[in-house]
Amino acid sequence: MHILVINGPNLNLLGIREPELYGEASYDDLVSLIEAEALRLGIVVSFVQSNCEGTLVDAIQGAYGTMDAIIINPAAYTHTSIALLDAIKAVGLPTIEVHLTNPDEREDFRKVSYIRPACQATITGQGFEGYLEALRFFVDIKKL
Amino acid sequence: MHILVINGPNLNLLGIREPELYGEASYDDLVSLIEAEALRLGIVVSFVQSNCEGTLVDAIQGAYGTMDAIIINPAAYTHTSIALLDAIKAVGLPTIEVHLTNPDEREDFRKVSYIRPACQATITGQGFEGYLEALRFFVDIKKL
Amino acid sequence: MHILVINGPNLNLLGIREPELYGEASYDDLVSLIEAEALRLGIVVSFVQSNCEGTLVDAIQGAYGTMDAIIINPAAYTHTSIALLDAIKAVGLPTIEVHLTNPDEREDFRKVSYIRPACQATITGQGFEGYLEALRFFVDIKKL
Amino acid sequence: MHILVINGPNLNLLGIREPELYGEASYDDLVSLIEAEALRLGIVVSFVQSNCEGTLVDAIQGAYGTMDAIIINPAAYTHTSIALLDAIKAVGLPTIEVHLTNPDEREDFRKVSYIRPACQATITGQGFEGYLEALRFFVDIKKL
Amino acid sequence: MHILVINGPNLNLLGIREPELYGEASYDDLVSLIEAEALRLGIVVSFVQSNCEGTLVDAIQGAYGTMDAIIINPAAYTHTSIALLDAIKAVGLPTIEVHLTNPDEREDFRKVSYIRPACQATITGQGFEGYLEALRFFVDIKKL
Amino acid sequence: MHILVINGPNLNLLGIREPELYGEASYDDLVSLIEAEALRLGIVVSFVQSNCEGTLVDAIQGAYGTMDAIIINPAAYTHTSIALLDAIKAVGLPTIEVHLTNPDEREDFRKVSYIRPACQATITGQGFEGYLEALRFFVDIKKL
Amino acid sequence: MHILVINGPNLNLLGIREPELYGEASYDDLVSLIEAEALRLGIVVSFVQSNCEGTLVDAIQGAYGTMDAIIINPAAYTHTSIALLDAIKAVGLPTIEVHLTNPDEREDFRKVSYIRPACQATITGQGFEGYLEALRFFVDIKKL
Amino acid sequence: MHILVINGPNLNLLGIREPELYGEASYDDLVSLIEAEALRLGIVVSFVQSNCEGTLVDAIQGAYGTMDAIIINPAAYTHTSIALLDAIKAVGLPTIEVHLTNPDEREDFRKVSYIRPACQATITGQGFEGYLEALRFFVDIKKL
Amino acid sequence: MHILVINGPNLNLLGIREPELYGEASYDDLVSLIEAEALRLGIVVSFVQSNCEGTLVDAIQGAYGTMDAIIINPAAYTHTSIALLDAIKAVGLPTIEVHLTNPDEREDFRKVSYIRPACQATITGQGFEGYLEALRFFVDIKKL
Amino acid sequence: MHILVINGPNLNLLGIREPELYGEASYDDLVSLIEAEALRLGIVVSFVQSNCEGTLVDAIQGAYGTMDAIIINPAAYTHTSIALLDAIKAVGLPTIEVHLTNPDEREDFRKVSYIRPACQATITGQGFEGYLEALRFFVDIKKL
Amino acid sequence: MHILVINGPNLNLLGIREPELYGEASYDDLVSLIEAEALRLGIVVSFVQSNCEGTLVDAIQGAYGTMDAIIINPAAYTHTSIALLDAIKAVGLPTIEVHLTNPDEREDFRKVSYIRPACQATITGQGFEGYLEALRFFVDIKKL
Amino acid sequence: MHILVINGPNLNLLGIREPELYGEASYDDLVSLIEAEALRLGIVVSFVQSNCEGTLVDAIQGAYGTMDAIIINPAAYTHTSIALLDAIKAVGLPTIEVHLTNPDEREDFRKVSYIRPACQATITGQGFEGYLEALRFFVDIKKL
Repeated sequence: MHILVINGPNLNLLGIREPELYGEASYDDLVSLIEAEALRLGIVVSFVQSNCEGTLVDAIQGAYGTMDAIIINPAAYTHTSIALLDAIKAVGLPTIEVHLTNPDEREDFRKVSYIRPACQATITGQGFEGYLEALRFFVDIKKL
Repeated sequence: MHILVINGPNLNLLGIREPELYGEASYDDLVSLIEAEALRLGIVVSFVQSNCEGTLVDAIQGAYGTMDAIIINPAAYTHTSIALLDAIKAVGLPTIEVHLTNPDEREDFRKVSYIRPACQATITGQGFEGYLEALRFFVDIKKL
Repeated sequence: MHILVINGPNLNLLGIREPELYGEASYDDLVSLIEAEALRLGIVVSFVQSNCEGTLVDAIQGAYGTMDAIIINPAAYTHTSIALLDAIKAVGLPTIEVHLTNPDEREDFRKVSYIRPACQATITGQGFEGYLEALRFFVDIKKL
Repeated sequence: MHILVINGPNLNLLGIREPELYGEASYDDLVSLIEAEALRLGIVVSFVQSNCEGTLVDAIQGAYGTMDAIIINPAAYTHTSIALLDAIKAVGLPTIEVHLTNPDEREDFRKVSYIRPACQATITGQGFEGYLEALRFFVDIKKL
Repeated sequence: MHILVINGPNLNLLGIREPELYGEASYDDLVSLIEAEALRLGIVVSFVQSNCEGTLVDAIQGAYGTMDAIIINPAAYTHTSIALLDAIKAVGLPTIEVHLTNPDEREDFRKVSYIRPACQATITGQGFEGYLEALRFFVDIKKL
Repeated sequence: MHILVINGPNLNLLGIREPELYGEASYDDLVSLIEAEALRLGIVVSFVQSNCEGTLVDAIQGAYGTMDAIIINPAAYTHTSIALLDAIKAVGLPTIEVHLTNPDEREDFRKVSYIRPACQATITGQGFEGYLEALRFFVDIKKL
Repeated sequence: MHILVINGPNLNLLGIREPELYGEASYDDLVSLIEAEALRLGIVVSFVQSNCEGTLVDAIQGAYGTMDAIIINPAAYTHTSIALLDAIKAVGLPTIEVHLTNPDEREDFRKVSYIRPACQATITGQGFEGYLEALRFFVDIKKL
Repeated sequence: MHILVINGPNLNLLGIREPELYGEASYDDLVSLIEAEALRLGIVVSFVQSNCEGTLVDAIQGAYGTMDAIIINPAAYTHTSIALLDAIKAVGLPTIEVHLTNPDEREDFRKVSYIRPACQATITGQGFEGYLEALRFFVDIKKL
Repeated sequence: MHILVINGPNLNLLGIREPELYGEASYDDLVSLIEAEALRLGIVVSFVQSNCEGTLVDAIQGAYGTMDAIIINPAAYTHTSIALLDAIKAVGLPTIEVHLTNPDEREDFRKVSYIRPACQATITGQGFEGYLEALRFFVDIKKL
Repeated sequence: MHILVINGPNLNLLGIREPELYGEASYDDLVSLIEAEALRLGIVVSFVQSNCEGTLVDAIQGAYGTMDAIIINPAAYTHTSIALLDAIKAVGLPTIEVHLTNPDEREDFRKVSYIRPACQATITGQGFEGYLEALRFFVDIKKL
Repeated sequence: MHILVINGPNLNLLGIREPELYGEASYDDLVSLIEAEALRLGIVVSFVQSNCEGTLVDAIQGAYGTMDAIIINPAAYTHTSIALLDAIKAVGLPTIEVHLTNPDEREDFRKVSYIRPACQATITGQGFEGYLEALRFFVDIKKL
Repeated sequence: MHILVINGPNLNLLGIREPELYGEASYDDLVSLIEAEALRLGIVVSFVQSNCEGTLVDAIQGAYGTMDAIIINPAAYTHTSIALLDAIKAVGLPTIEVHLTNPDEREDFRKVSYIRPACQATITGQGFEGYLEALRFFVDIKKL
């Protein structure tokens, strides 16, 4: 099983960006943590991080035929990108949306998620743990 | 580990209610399926179903000090009940919101979820499987 | 032919509640009037009145397999209850919505009716007579 | 008893217009059906159909002093015409609003009914049968 | 000086229509009153009343080159007709909008006036007197 | 007959303020023009201009028992002052609202007039001439 | 003098529920505090707490003819229940609305109070003290 | 090939109506221009212009079975007429919407087009040329 | 204990202004009534009434360090003044908002209260009695 | 004549993406079809497809001075990109907007088109044919 | 160069008013700080502070012909005063808007700034430093 | 001191794009002007211009640790990009927003600025001069 983990704009700044909100661990820490859990679960993970909406769309498209599932934290593009929604629907892969914090508790413009209707689950407010939950979610389904 | 599974109004009519939308399996089938998975996972589950908002609030309150987590499908009350939100926040238990179908794809008034800000994850559009995923979600966390 | 007549919150206070708006006849008077007309029409009627949304949902569910039609005045729940809508759609019985006054002429929040899309007819502003019309509506259909 | 049956724009195209939505029977079939039921009930019916809002207002005004009641399906003008509302209120005749389908289940702009506050009942989603119900509604009232 | 007095839908029912709101005098009374004042002021008035939006547009267009000014009470079309606005702007004649009652004090949908931006004055809540004021308004301007 | 002419904020800057919008004549020119017309009509006029909402309310109150009518251009306060509305309703004097330009053709926030429901007429877009029309309006009424 | 003190959903969890927001005193503490003050004031108090909207409506109805006044903190139902409003208006007893915190300072959906128009006073943000103030409010009125 | 060209309210005033916006050529000029292009293309065109919404609906209905396509500029009715939408959908003919100017650049109420969802193309801001483009559009399709 | 009683615009016209709404007693009657109750309660009251928003802000500021509490009926400024809210928050004195009638039952624009979030209680619809209740409210708190 | 054909995000997935909605032909099929028609018409076409909003802006800018017209299907960016609007207006080339389906019939957020005000025509719901029509549209204009 | 520094309502309470939000320095401290910087820059500053909207309008008008630029912190009137906007546009002086905190991060009603469209710059969230920046802004321009 | 000057989409077309709105000077002219002023002020400036939202985010991130401040004109992305807001907050550098024209005076969708809450100042409507002001703003702060 091969899962693509996509992170949107500014998540490469984890640890630098508003640490009181997002914590002090870096993006590399996040990748390591996910890789460790993937190893434990016996699956393969790949990573994409980009600040560009189009590159994220490219990544989702590239998963078609090569990946089994997608875990995506679209960050700011959650609330503005219809293109990501269209891409997820186009490739038809099982997808989980992850947010480090709970966008429903922040500014009004962070309450909309364009991609949620195309996702099987949304995990919010669990920090890095949310990505690991998403991994196990897909592994559990596969095991059945 | 003891998990309370709460189902809101009209879910007792599963199999009768709009089968083209919700499938033909009954509420008892749902309970059996969840119990089987719980057995496999080595955990205990209890069930509450009610058509009354107040009884659902009572159930959530009753979980305080006796349950480890809550899985809730508030059905119609998802979109109208602030009391459920307050109850989940009051007892402070980890909670997952489950919907059989994807409310974001139905009438506008089903797009609001008052309880989502108090939940760790929202699983939609997976039918009965969504409840099982929620069970495994909590078991995975516990195992770590 | 057996018809269930459901009355929502505060209708048990008829005659006491704002008589300049709802008249001086009591809920018992309403029941008697409907029973007399039912006798004349040769049909059977049952009654449920409750101030609790969940009890009204229970009543609608209970009509499944035992009643031929429903006449409902959901009063205040007309404007706030999606659960009643779901219940009516779930049991699939022909249903008529009745209001003593015309909610469209009162406060803005009384202009929404969640259940109207699931009803065959809406009768407003006819006082008690509206219930009798609803009875005859169902009898007329049956006679054809 | 003399009842005026008014049909608004495009209802003269019944059978041609979107038959999957409105059925294959024509406007003439509708008139025949209503006339047959009126004969059975011992009442007289007249008909007006027009695509022009002003002509419909004229028809309602013309009913003043000559008709006992109005049955109206204003079609598209339901959602845009305040003039029809004013006309119905001006002549003060008992009026029932009929729709072949349920406008609450279609586009948003079909959810508003300007004339509903001036009508005794609204019958929706019953096809041609809705007009017959409206006829019997008035006859029942007269019989009492 | 020749002024066209245009009255919109249902104003031909004055005296019949909701007399507690509009008074008991008829449309003919209104015409006589305006004619008397016109005689006193030494000007000529013509009248158009129609329930049809298109006919009112025709009337405004017909005033081009033959009339010096327009007094218009568009009644229900005040709140729904962009065509009347376009017509008034197209012919470019000085125009006054008159309402018997004050639409700002009635339903919300009567608070919009599409034609007001194309009028020199709006007179409301003065009953028939409002038309006479409008006549004198134009005469005063001419006298200067 | 004694009429109070009230001008709101920044109208004392006429001739200075955006002359391409309001013309080059000054506030004194406006006063002179109104006084000349008043002389011709045989009536008395008094003037108040203030940039302070409270002073304008004082002026309206002061007209109670001493003036026969009010002509008011509340300028910016047209769109924000409920206090002016209350004052006009409190003193109960016949009042006409005048605007030099047509606020309906400017920014959205200039489309609301709180005082219009308390006025007999609204004259817009006639420049200084609008005040003279308002004077004659009251004189015409008095003459009848 | 006999006053009914009604507390809505989740208030039975006081001391447990979000203590940083609502304090550490329990619902029993609240009852004791109110009883002590009632004793001091020489009046009788009764208490109802329920998580069910319908039970709260029942309680208000039950006060008719047996109680002199109502003090109510409807908690979450403040913002969603038209049935409570109707009940208070139906029994016609003097009623004061109390909130421990100030709902105007929390989420948007807590800014609406359906019952406020039927209450003589609203006391917010005073914690338990607000109930005592409400008691004294009614006693003061009685003393006059 | 026979195409019906329908023009809505006030387009008969072309050349008179706001020439700085619509140009100085008249409606007759428009007809001549279209006829010349039709001749060149070897097709037949018919014309309807009316200020009445109902007459425009009649015209669309009349095209059923006699015309091959419709070109329509509904002018002001673009933004207010659901009846035109219903008519176009009812007759099912290929239809193109034409506007002389670009309504998206004018008042807010001109931004809605009720008929656009039923049209194959919308041509805006091309003046008279837009009608000719629409003609060629249909001819091109036919030639294929 | 020294309490400042502030009354906003047009309350000096009590008895003159819309007596069917506000009663026939004058502002002086209100002052006398409050003074009598203050005497009975053994406290001192001062009064400010102004039609000017800025003067009301000055009055609130002036209470800082000299008064123990504020009772304020901001009248029309209730719905438009953020400056009053800021002033009350700035001086930090306990404040009660009083309205003679219930603004929630009047025009939509009277439903907003900017100052309510800064007040301990809001008393509405009790006429002059509301001010006396507010006095006793502060005295009761002091006595504890 | 040289025309640039721009396709936005996910259109490279044609044939894969939701074939029940978009058909089974691929993006390459679309390019071939357009090239064939261009050949037949004697014009030159170039193609750009990108998932990146910025690259589409670059493409539009690159057309300045090298292309004669633009045909653009901005897909998801239709509804979110002001930058595309600005680019089209900046280069000032004649532009046609094409959509395979009719966005007005899908989700609400697909009803907005930011670029429509800068386009000469919008062609919707014609599938691949829409692009060919757009080509012929420009050729027709050139031929005149 | 002579610059007028205008401060709106409640800014005279600086140091008293919500010091956790606005700091502990007083209005006099602010004036001293600005005067010191003005001295350093070789320019003259004058100050106006008022709680009255009208007085602020007077101050702006008074700057016409006597001042070279305006620095204004309208505080609460930022969000409610169209009169200030009109005054700034009327006198036509270069103006900078300053806010101690960032209104975009507070209540919704503080997000609107009526005067921003008439200002050259808006400086927010810099505390007292914002005024000094504004001074230097004007000096820099002058130096060029 | 090293300042990064970021320009968003289509600003590379300055001089070509709508010169009546943006003037005839090119993007290179803008760069030269800023460089000259930077030289005069003794600071270093770097430039980024891109039509891609993601590249602009990259640029802001790249300024972290290498630049002292940012001047940004996000052009069209001002109104649609939450990612830019997040980036500016993440790097925490002092930032000034510059617009050549005043977006508050253009289309409604240009009135929102997502990045303003993260900026120290917003300079609008000053053309190229606005960038120079921003430079001096930072220099002045540094000098203190």
